[in-house]
Amino acid sequence: MASYLQMNKEQLTAEFEQVKKEYERLKSLGTVLDMTRGKPGFDQMDECGEIFDLVGNATGFTNCEGTDCRNYGGLDGLIELKYLFSHILGVDHSQIIVGGNSSLNMMFDTIAQGMTHGFGDKPWMLQGGIKFICPCPGYDRHFAITEHFGIEMIPVKNTPNGPDMDIIEELIKDEKVKGMWCVPKYSNPEGITYSDDTVRRLAAMKPAAKDFRIMWDNAYAIHDLYDKGDKLLNIYHECVKNGTEDNIIMFTSSSKITFPGAGVAAEAASPYNVSLLKKRMAFQTIGPDKLNQLRHARMFPNFEVLKKHMKKHANILRPKFEAVINELNKQLAGKEIAEWTNPLGGYFVNLNVRKGCAKRVEQLCAEAGLKLTSVGATYPYGKDPDNSNIRIAPSYPSVDEVKSASVILCCAVRYAALESLL
Amino acid sequence: MASYLQMNKEQLTAEFEQVKKEYERLKSLGTVLDMTRGKPGFDQMDECGEIFDLVGNATGFTNCEGTDCRNYGGLDGLIELKYLFSHILGVDHSQIIVGGNSSLNMMFDTIAQGMTHGFGDKPWMLQGGIKFICPCPGYDRHFAITEHFGIEMIPVKNTPNGPDMDIIEELIKDEKVKGMWCVPKYSNPEGITYSDDTVRRLAAMKPAAKDFRIMWDNAYAIHDLYDKGDKLLNIYHECVKNGTEDNIIMFTSSSKITFPGAGVAAEAASPYNVSLLKKRMAFQTIGPDKLNQLRHARMFPNFEVLKKHMKKHANILRPKFEAVINELNKQLAGKEIAEWTNPLGGYFVNLNVRKGCAKRVEQLCAEAGLKLTSVGATYPYGKDPDNSNIRIAPSYPSVDEVKSASVILCCAVRYAALESLL
Repeated sequence: MASYLQMNKEQLTAEFEQVKKEYERLKSLGTVLDMTRGKPGFDQMDECGEIFDLVGNATGFTNCEGTDCRNYGGLDGLIELKYLFSHILGVDHSQIIVGGNSSLNMMFDTIAQGMTHGFGDKPWMLQGGIKFICPCPGYDRHFAITEHFGIEMIPVKNTPNGPDMDIIEELIKDEKVKGMWCVPKYSNPEGITYSDDTVRRLAAMKPAAKDFRIMWDNAYAIHDLYDKGDKLLNIYHECVKNGTEDNIIMFTSSSKITFPGAGVAAEAASPYNVSLLKKRMAFQTIGPDKLNQLRHARMFPNFEVLKKHMKKHANILRPKFEAVINELNKQLAGKEIAEWTNPLGGYFVNLNVRKGCAKRVEQLCAEAGLKLTSVGATYPYGKDPDNSNIRIAPSYPSVDEVKSASVILCCAVRYAALESLL
Repeated sequence: MASYLQMNKEQLTAEFEQVKKEYERLKSLGTVLDMTRGKPGFDQMDECGEIFDLVGNATGFTNCEGTDCRNYGGLDGLIELKYLFSHILGVDHSQIIVGGNSSLNMMFDTIAQGMTHGFGDKPWMLQGGIKFICPCPGYDRHFAITEHFGIEMIPVKNTPNGPDMDIIEELIKDEKVKGMWCVPKYSNPEGITYSDDTVRRLAAMKPAAKDFRIMWDNAYAIHDLYDKGDKLLNIYHECVKNGTEDNIIMFTSSSKITFPGAGVAAEAASPYNVSLLKKRMAFQTIGPDKLNQLRHARMFPNFEVLKKHMKKHANILRPKFEAVINELNKQLAGKEIAEWTNPLGGYFVNLNVRKGCAKRVEQLCAEAGLKLTSVGATYPYGKDPDNSNIRIAPSYPSVDEVKSASVILCCAVRYAALESLL
């Protein structure tokens, strides 16, 4: 495992010849693989096929409160799911709103509400020139929403403990800074979980803007790959200690528990924020799809059943993640041309290649039949300043496909590094 | 059937004594009935109980294009439903967006998009002082959305042919007037269908505002009570003739076809408008619940099956509507104290009582155990200038309950009229 940085020109040239040959061989295989998105695999979804038998003529349509879920009504969702999501989000069930099939939609609507109605202050749109803190690399769709509404994005680099709090504590002194995106557990794409200290500092923040909101996207709250997963401190409890509970709105969904397109999403917040959110929702809809909620409530009658279900997902996903990590170790360890994470959960492995090489890696992979998440997508405005970050999404393909993809990817990383060194 | 207006004081007093006695008798029955909302009855929903067997392990999850509907993707819905809704909305399937469970939500989002991004012009919110035309009586939730966004509402009284076009053609000369609500078929609450002439005049409009949009809520497009229902002219075709197709956005849903809370909603518009709507949606969500869409696609493989299904609804609803009309005829015909519609479809019977009496009727009904839609709700800002309009929603209760409710209602109408005459 010789470091490329220690090699002389001759050695590098020899290595490059070998890598090129290997790359041409891989290219000739005619692989067609797509690892662009963190989609669950159908093998995971097969694990809850019985959910469809749980609501119908034979089983009835009535929830635990006696509501026939086929008709209108019930703005904020079924009580059973409020209890279930309260375990996931760590707040009282009365603070939970259970919605439709998309937590992203709930986040979009929340930002839209900020723009048109504000959060206790003037609508953001009429304040003008507002900004959002965007820890990065991060989730492209968060950044896309922010950009859609014309909110200026301030990138802040993540540390291994979460976003760089020294910088953030300075930024929030600007009252134009209205909020911040967070994926606090098994973050997209780095797979890091915020440390207790980071959570405490976030909860202690007293931003200049009274209408500042942390968008806490806890998408991977119970998505461990191993029995011993990361533990995320309960930020809401920390906020309550600081009297800052109105600063945070939390989101999650069952998209990666049941079905990505047909799951159930939820948000949670302080009583004040919940009242603001529900006030808007009362104009927006008569209520969510309670039958799909009922399906989920019957599938997961309690949190223990849900956790057991997630172990099945872990068993399916773990070999895929390990296939990536193994190949990264095999081909790249010690070469000093890349760094990667080894997450204990979530949906991504994060790979940082040599500065300036990521786009070339993406291109080499594409030419060999492997589509990766577009380089830069994990940064605000699609611009990775280092041209270094690659998001690996191993969940959707089969283990064998992930192996093939990893071989191509690692070869491309070496190829691009050697090109840049020579 | 003596007209109250022809009676002398003595006759009126005698009549009032009788009516009061009857009212007290009805009150003593201890009725508890709710006719506030146009909710379908469970008997209607029982007609499509088999829909739940159509998606599951046994039947699979793949649509006609080979998409496994469990995963992410497909922003604008399944092709099968685009075709189905194209029959309902009368436009090409390529102009249809199939969404979640609520057309109201689609309307809210469309107005919100106007506020934050506009329709080809400056965002409505930044233009300031914008207005909407609100034909009335109308749907309270339309007015509520408009009010929520701070859009000034201009009430325009409906004629038996739809909104008063003479007035509207004047109003649209103001470029602050950005749109208009329409329920063009079996309107809520009057049950009227816009005449061909009204549709043609709407389609011919050239508003001063280039970003003017008609919100065409065709909620009852195929909701006939009789074999021979009203025919609504295809406004989109008329718009195309006039080059005004960007002026209109159409909505409908299966809320009153399958399930009010768990149906499928759709919108349709010109290619330009569809591109604007989809652009926003691409930020808002990854896609709708395709499994519920697949359920609907399999339940209604073509338009003929759907129309047959709607006949079952008609058979259930017709006796309820006739129970109302019969009682209105029996107690109120010829008395010159009320007017009502006899709609051939939709969800409401409209009753106009003597000016100034509607709130008293509501109160008398409530005291006798019958809850009606809050008087005024059918007008912008909740204000019926005549205090005359009552919306009767007979769909949800049983036929017997509708009969009892109608007896109470008619008695209350006579009571309030006699009070006001004496």
